[in-house]
Amino acid sequence: MRKIAVLSSFFEEHHTRQVLDTAARCGFTVDLYSDDRIPEEKRGQYEVLYGFPSPKLLPTMTGMRWFCAASAGVDTYSDDALYADPEHILVTNSAGAFGTTIAEHILMVTLMLLRRMPAFEQVVRERRWVRTMPMRSICGSTVTILGTGDIGTNFARRAKALGAAAVYGVRRTKKAADPAYDGIYTHEELDALLPKTDILLLALPATPETDRILSRERIALLSKNAIVVNVGRGNAIDQEALMEALNEDRIAGAALDVMEPEPLPVDHPLWDTRNLLLTPHISGNMSLGITRDLDVSMFCEDLENYAAGRPLKHLVDRKLGY
Amino acid sequence: MRKIAVLSSFFEEHHTRQVLDTAARCGFTVDLYSDDRIPEEKRGQYEVLYGFPSPKLLPTMTGMRWFCAASAGVDTYSDDALYADPEHILVTNSAGAFGTTIAEHILMVTLMLLRRMPAFEQVVRERRWVRTMPMRSICGSTVTILGTGDIGTNFARRAKALGAAAVYGVRRTKKAADPAYDGIYTHEELDALLPKTDILLLALPATPETDRILSRERIALLSKNAIVVNVGRGNAIDQEALMEALNEDRIAGAALDVMEPEPLPVDHPLWDTRNLLLTPHISGNMSLGITRDLDVSMFCEDLENYAAGRPLKHLVDRKLGY
Repeated sequence: MRKIAVLSSFFEEHHTRQVLDTAARCGFTVDLYSDDRIPEEKRGQYEVLYGFPSPKLLPTMTGMRWFCAASAGVDTYSDDALYADPEHILVTNSAGAFGTTIAEHILMVTLMLLRRMPAFEQVVRERRWVRTMPMRSICGSTVTILGTGDIGTNFARRAKALGAAAVYGVRRTKKAADPAYDGIYTHEELDALLPKTDILLLALPATPETDRILSRERIALLSKNAIVVNVGRGNAIDQEALMEALNEDRIAGAALDVMEPEPLPVDHPLWDTRNLLLTPHISGNMSLGITRDLDVSMFCEDLENYAAGRPLKHLVDRKLGY
Repeated sequence: MRKIAVLSSFFEEHHTRQVLDTAARCGFTVDLYSDDRIPEEKRGQYEVLYGFPSPKLLPTMTGMRWFCAASAGVDTYSDDALYADPEHILVTNSAGAFGTTIAEHILMVTLMLLRRMPAFEQVVRERRWVRTMPMRSICGSTVTILGTGDIGTNFARRAKALGAAAVYGVRRTKKAADPAYDGIYTHEELDALLPKTDILLLALPATPETDRILSRERIALLSKNAIVVNVGRGNAIDQEALMEALNEDRIAGAALDVMEPEPLPVDHPLWDTRNLLLTPHISGNMSLGITRDLDVSMFCEDLENYAAGRPLKHLVDRKLGY
């Protein structure tokens, strides 16, 4: 019997049933593990692995033909050296499951920065009553989104619904117009957008092309009113240059849910940077039911494809890194 | 020459120009005051007053025929005793100017409660790295909005755009269907909605009818998942009962931008209530440019109406209190 290992730490009962039913229909048996400590003697038996394993597990899964990452980012799963048979391994991700939860995170931190919420929270902790500080609105703002995948597009739709004056998408290659955006541009065209951007969102995978894409030079192109939100990967920003710009009030604020390194060491200067709203990589995760449901459904959909010999829908190009 | 007194503390230059131009066209002269300390000997000269005065100023404005409150709430301006000629005074408000800013506040605090942001902010203040706490989403939630005016309806539209499963409006009297809502109900029908409500918004004026409308009995009808957001007036909630429900985890959380009394005394138990996000009455105010622009435009529009002898568009019914 063909076997699947599922790392089911985030499963609710209905997810277990859904996976077991789909697997049975497809001629597979399933072993469920609450974490990635699969006994060594069993690791060679599994043709399929689904979950969030430590990358160190992967080379020991010697019979594996398909690895489905329960995450959207696969930067830690892209190296050939991780796979016993790198030429033939299929790797899929779960991009598409995180759009709602991450878009709501972006909306929350953007409004917190525009509306000075960290300063008002400090006022409340001190039991003071301060009622006025200048605020700004998403309504009428110009939004530039680096990375027009599931996450960027989910935020683009929300920003438009809230009255943003313009929402621009920026991506690696040109593509046809998308109604979620007022314009789609390439990385080469980014510099022209930055001076007029009020809200700059980075929702990019970690790849050689996105490394330090928000460079010191590009940070210098941002206006004093600009806020920067990063929910992709920490490598996308020249973090030193961003800290300087924030500490010198050259931009209005930033919200980083991803940074370098993670976890952030206790003595890192990011903790003390001015007008910076830090969160410990919480925007995605499996915290929302809708994410868990979509993640499991996407795996089951591709399990049906895999069993039938059809192409997998969520296949990753490991050379591109997403 | 007929005279207008304008309390212009929130004016930018273009607002001053707009008011002076409109007044000149309508045959009025304008005196601008940076606060409500109008010299006593001049108070009798003004036919029109626009701004946020202390109610104590009003009885001394003996020649006043029209008072335009720059605020949406007029509960402190409704008493007959405030006016030299209560039978003939016209009172207008600026409801309509605050929908965007208050809806963005509601969205922010709702997401902060659903996504446990106060707890994550505490984690970050302690420089710890905690990544998972169960979260919830506006997507799929049932939203009940008490008060279907400008503010409630602006939030209703945003909640629908963000994927709320249902958005119910509750008001004093029946009215025709409104596309912003999945259903419009009256106060008498509120009890049936409460048990299925995830997000309860109160956006009500302070009137005898709205006093303690969220009573102890109604708080008991809410589910353990419910969050309560109040941006109208503090009198709408039985505050003692709400504090008890929060401290005993009988509801999931609350965000109060209005409360009793304001400012909140330093030793008040609200400051220490569990799962309560307090803000010092900041959701409206004149903090956003869009609010200031609308507020001044609405006054100028009614100034044209007043000068031409037409009915005022933003007239308040002082008996109803809004």
